[in-house]
Amino acid sequence: MSVKSIEESLSKDKLNELKQQWLNELKTSQILSVPDEPPQTDSQVPVSAIQCLINDEKMVQCLKSSKSEIYMPFDFIQNYFDVYGKMKHYDGYDRFEFQQSNAKDVYNPKTPYTYSGVFMTFETSNVEARDRVKCISGITGVPLSTQWHIEGYYYGIQIAQFGMSHYSKHMTQKPPTKQVYENAEESVQPRWTFSNKNCLVEKKKDFERNSQVIKFTTPDSIPLGSGASLVLGNTMEFILSFDLKMVANGSLSVVLETNDKMKQYTIHYITNSLVIDYDLKSNIYYGIGPSSTWRHMARDLLTDLKKGIGISTTRHAKKVKVVIQKVSRLIVRGRGYIDNVTLSSSEHLTQFFDASQWMYLNQDKETGGWKNYVERKLEGFEAIPSGWISAMGQGQGMSVLSRAYHVFHDPKYIVALSRALQPFTKSSEQGGVRATFLKTYTWYEEYPTKPSSFVLNGFMYSLIGLYDFKSLLEHEFGFGSNGEPPKLYHDGMTSLTAMLPLYDGGSHTFYDLRHFMLHTSPNVARWGYHVTHLSQLVLLYSVSREPVLKKFINNWSGYLKGKVAKHN
Amino acid sequence: MSVKSIEESLSKDKLNELKQQWLNELKTSQILSVPDEPPQTDSQVPVSAIQCLINDEKMVQCLKSSKSEIYMPFDFIQNYFDVYGKMKHYDGYDRFEFQQSNAKDVYNPKTPYTYSGVFMTFETSNVEARDRVKCISGITGVPLSTQWHIEGYYYGIQIAQFGMSHYSKHMTQKPPTKQVYENAEESVQPRWTFSNKNCLVEKKKDFERNSQVIKFTTPDSIPLGSGASLVLGNTMEFILSFDLKMVANGSLSVVLETNDKMKQYTIHYITNSLVIDYDLKSNIYYGIGPSSTWRHMARDLLTDLKKGIGISTTRHAKKVKVVIQKVSRLIVRGRGYIDNVTLSSSEHLTQFFDASQWMYLNQDKETGGWKNYVERKLEGFEAIPSGWISAMGQGQGMSVLSRAYHVFHDPKYIVALSRALQPFTKSSEQGGVRATFLKTYTWYEEYPTKPSSFVLNGFMYSLIGLYDFKSLLEHEFGFGSNGEPPKLYHDGMTSLTAMLPLYDGGSHTFYDLRHFMLHTSPNVARWGYHVTHLSQLVLLYSVSREPVLKKFINNWSGYLKGKVAKHN
Repeated sequence: MSVKSIEESLSKDKLNELKQQWLNELKTSQILSVPDEPPQTDSQVPVSAIQCLINDEKMVQCLKSSKSEIYMPFDFIQNYFDVYGKMKHYDGYDRFEFQQSNAKDVYNPKTPYTYSGVFMTFETSNVEARDRVKCISGITGVPLSTQWHIEGYYYGIQIAQFGMSHYSKHMTQKPPTKQVYENAEESVQPRWTFSNKNCLVEKKKDFERNSQVIKFTTPDSIPLGSGASLVLGNTMEFILSFDLKMVANGSLSVVLETNDKMKQYTIHYITNSLVIDYDLKSNIYYGIGPSSTWRHMARDLLTDLKKGIGISTTRHAKKVKVVIQKVSRLIVRGRGYIDNVTLSSSEHLTQFFDASQWMYLNQDKETGGWKNYVERKLEGFEAIPSGWISAMGQGQGMSVLSRAYHVFHDPKYIVALSRALQPFTKSSEQGGVRATFLKTYTWYEEYPTKPSSFVLNGFMYSLIGLYDFKSLLEHEFGFGSNGEPPKLYHDGMTSLTAMLPLYDGGSHTFYDLRHFMLHTSPNVARWGYHVTHLSQLVLLYSVSREPVLKKFINNWSGYLKGKVAKHN
Repeated sequence: MSVKSIEESLSKDKLNELKQQWLNELKTSQILSVPDEPPQTDSQVPVSAIQCLINDEKMVQCLKSSKSEIYMPFDFIQNYFDVYGKMKHYDGYDRFEFQQSNAKDVYNPKTPYTYSGVFMTFETSNVEARDRVKCISGITGVPLSTQWHIEGYYYGIQIAQFGMSHYSKHMTQKPPTKQVYENAEESVQPRWTFSNKNCLVEKKKDFERNSQVIKFTTPDSIPLGSGASLVLGNTMEFILSFDLKMVANGSLSVVLETNDKMKQYTIHYITNSLVIDYDLKSNIYYGIGPSSTWRHMARDLLTDLKKGIGISTTRHAKKVKVVIQKVSRLIVRGRGYIDNVTLSSSEHLTQFFDASQWMYLNQDKETGGWKNYVERKLEGFEAIPSGWISAMGQGQGMSVLSRAYHVFHDPKYIVALSRALQPFTKSSEQGGVRATFLKTYTWYEEYPTKPSSFVLNGFMYSLIGLYDFKSLLEHEFGFGSNGEPPKLYHDGMTSLTAMLPLYDGGSHTFYDLRHFMLHTSPNVARWGYHVTHLSQLVLLYSVSREPVLKKFINNWSGYLKGKVAKHN
């Protein structure tokens, strides 16, 4: 029986009665629907088109309802007001979601901030994935930046952030899963295969490490990627770690299977000073230096793969979408010793150690600064010549080293921390980071510009670094509130509290005070920096309980939801 | 047959089929297309309703076109973004007009600004119409303010602005039309009628004025509004002016016909000290003091009528809509002399003279200040006790007196101008108006608050006043760039140029720097003040050619059309 014939089988009145009942049911179900679900509204919307003149300048096509309500197109609103919106599809209905900002979450710690804990929201950062990270150096284990220079250079702030993101992940993530493939404790031969009969792998006692290790020997002349091969076959854990000591030049190669059309890639870690290279086919190269003393290395194979394939001649690495399906095997070539070949789901503490070590080794002993060997140009300011020191770099370095001391208890970190204070007492002209706002307020400059630029987020990172060192001294050495770190911190907090209003635009924050220094338009902070400002204030408020900070946290949080300062 | 029994009479499947068909019909009917109206666009707009979630907080009903474009209701946009819009009806079509701001025009002079010309855009101001003007005093001819006190008090800034608006109108409007009803030059009797046989009107030679004048005499006991009556019958010109000298108490009444339901009103100007009164029927009263020496009076009858009917016990006069249809007659009572009874379309120069005279007479001789005898409370600051001096008042007073000297050439105005500089050299604590921003920049305070408030518009008015006096001295006395006025002006301009960026919010301007001084949210200037800032900058740029001002004029003009500062 067709619908038509059903309809014919009943009187019109009865049919209408039935129809009405169902429509009422529908209506009721719309009213009763949970507030999350849209359809409570009457969707009968008779509209006509109407022209809208914007600020006497241009026309936009709008809609007018029968009740003379005007509707403006979101395309216009988005452009004109710089807001965000997109259609979201839920089970059974669509909803349009409008956002004032595209900001990430503000720092909102569950436990009090300490110098030995998670750093702000850095457990969610992925520094190595940034397109301005050229690669993770095989020599130092820390990122090389292309932010202001194509060649790639070590940028202390980036390295510190790399270190702190791994430290914070170490503190928050569950322990990694691990597969140990070779620790030289059992019989060796079954696991290894050889490309050449002159390749040899044997167990040896290493007295320096007081451990059994693998000694490997292959002819010098065999090609890269051949030698003694250890089957791994791991489809889950992609962080490779091992201890290595090379006696002569050689290499360590890792064969990966991927979902890429190239299928198989080999990453070669070679005892030379190459940064990174890619043959545009299936081979990626990283230099690891001579590696002639024992070192513990951890390589994030996916990062190494992506940075290799994405290698670029611009300042931005190409975005690469590739997935590792299997870490097939590892091949050693040349002469040396290896131990504890492991694949794990993470090696954060090793990566943090590499960053700490870099910070320790690369601090300028004379000035105590982490010098940035790249010219820096800020619009409107004189170029800052290579070799400058950043208060942010000093602060972030101190945050790393405070944690490094806490974890590794190596007194050399305390020495480095103390040295790191020196630039805070010297003006930018003297090669330091100290500036003064209108003869009144002490400031620590992210960029030692002429004139001063008073970058807010860099200043607050420097205060956090000072706080970390100060707290470390208090908690682990029983220091009181005397001495340089507390004084530098308190002077900075006084300035912060006093000057915070100068960064308040009423609906956004300002990145710096260049508008005041150079008589230009304010340099409005994009939402990402606005959230950084807020997160830093939340942290500094949590440790200082300074009520002014609380007030600004409240006001500035509102800006993320379009709650602007009142006009008179 | 009940619905239930219909349902029972059909199989479940068939019923569902039927139901689905109707629901589909309903769905289709929700996609609507209602053509009509505007010409140039395609008016076929099929839309459906869709819910929009705003900042994860609340729902707004939007529309979605068949091309999935989203339209948001202007009601929401207006509230959320604080913008303006209204439907305009043109010949043959309607158009919706969207505006970022509700601002008036920015000062855009056709001829260069001078101390003797139009003051900014004041030719468009109507000070007496402001609801915070209680009335125009019959004694002084200048407004009484209720802005911060219900009683009504003389507020120098308001009086100066009243003076400058009439001066600027005098400079820009075409000469008034005038009807002279009595100048005692012709035979008298025909024009006058008398309510009582003891009333007398006669021509007399007045030796002080060297002119024929009318002497009037009526019994003391006759009621207000009776006496010697002069028919006017003017339906066009509503500014009454005359010269008057009273010998004993008396009054001058004017009978008006209006479009009001009360039809006829009489305004009584009485020789007492009453400010204003209204019998809630048809009589309005103004005191004019003893008036025992010759004075030239000009009364804006419409203003006097409206302020009378609108008299209020709050700080705001009631809005009154009334139109004068005829000025019927004038009645004098008591004993005195009157001359030059005139109705004209304006009497701006008389009103400017009254303001100048008030400024001259009410300057505090000791401090040189126009003291404000009202307590002033600014949110967040200590209350300023009555008797305070305002840099804005000093500046506006100087702008009035510079023009007064230029027009009337009375040296007393130069004396007053010189005295007016004194508060600029004394700090707020010392009773002056001078402040310093962070030990660096000199500022002249509109309100001498503790701490300083750095109100921008008041500061710029003070600079314009200083510029006016400085220019007067240069042009009419051949002064050079030495001396106090140029120095105060140049110090102020240096501060303005340096500090202007601190008032830049990136999309609005700030009214003052209380956010910096009190650590609060910025006090965003409403669009009216934003336009004042711009007009003042245009004026100061036109006379200084300071390029920084030009830059800010450009940026800040953009804010009126939603062109905001860029983010990084």
